[in-house]
Amino acid sequence: MKGLFQYNWQVRDEWFDWCLKQPPEEIEKKRSGGMESILKNLFHIVDVEVSWIYAILDRPDFTPEFSDYPSIQHIIRFSEAYRPEVESVVFHFSSIAEQKPVKASWSEETYTQGDILRHLIAHEIHHIGQMSVWAREMNRVPVSASYVERQQ
Amino acid sequence: MKGLFQYNWQVRDEWFDWCLKQPPEEIEKKRSGGMESILKNLFHIVDVEVSWIYAILDRPDFTPEFSDYPSIQHIIRFSEAYRPEVESVVFHFSSIAEQKPVKASWSEETYTQGDILRHLIAHEIHHIGQMSVWAREMNRVPVSASYVERQQ
Repeated sequence: MKGLFQYNWQVRDEWFDWCLKQPPEEIEKKRSGGMESILKNLFHIVDVEVSWIYAILDRPDFTPEFSDYPSIQHIIRFSEAYRPEVESVVFHFSSIAEQKPVKASWSEETYTQGDILRHLIAHEIHHIGQMSVWAREMNRVPVSASYVERQQ
Repeated sequence: MKGLFQYNWQVRDEWFDWCLKQPPEEIEKKRSGGMESILKNLFHIVDVEVSWIYAILDRPDFTPEFSDYPSIQHIIRFSEAYRPEVESVVFHFSSIAEQKPVKASWSEETYTQGDILRHLIAHEIHHIGQMSVWAREMNRVPVSASYVERQQ
């Protein structure tokens, strides 16, 4: 579990660096699929991660608005600010936590903590995959998605 | 580990069904990013999965050619034919297997079996994410990528 979260955070940070080198209008531009822009996809990745981690931690609902994070710099700070709380769950994950039921206020269903963490892993990789297509459509080289090449 | 493989296989099978309902020229059409078509992305997902599983099983190299799998029906049969061997590794994964070194003939590096399985999980989700953008560009609704909604 931890390995895939660390992979996602490394890839996310590389996309942040990538975004800092692009014209702001390109990363704000409306595109097909996903959350319809690179900036909105990155905001959504952090929003969803923090929201589910807050549900696991039984904290009050977390409902950030995209309009409060209007630039890549805002989203980088957003991602960094909540990383310690996300790590507190991911790094302490155990076979007991795996089966622990979690009920988020926005969901009718109760899920196990294990299923929620797997959801977050898949969720981020999926939205990053979308961004790799948008990067190619911009004639830019996307960040590498290889997991094994990061383990050397 | 098993949960994310099963998620990927379920999503993959839903994309196979989705493809069977599309005009063949749409799933063969050259697009930006990934392996540059829906059909090639799906072929690549199966090819990479089987290749690494064969490396784990210490079997001779597996080098299928896309030209031998020219339709979605071919790729569905390809995916189904090798599923039992992939399952034999995934379903028997253990903490001992996690650390077992694997050297694939096409790679300079030796990786652990755990890292290879995490690579395969991330690899498939990434390429499926790309396909979700292409589906929207075709004005079609992509297959849902939600992990938790499949756990109810």
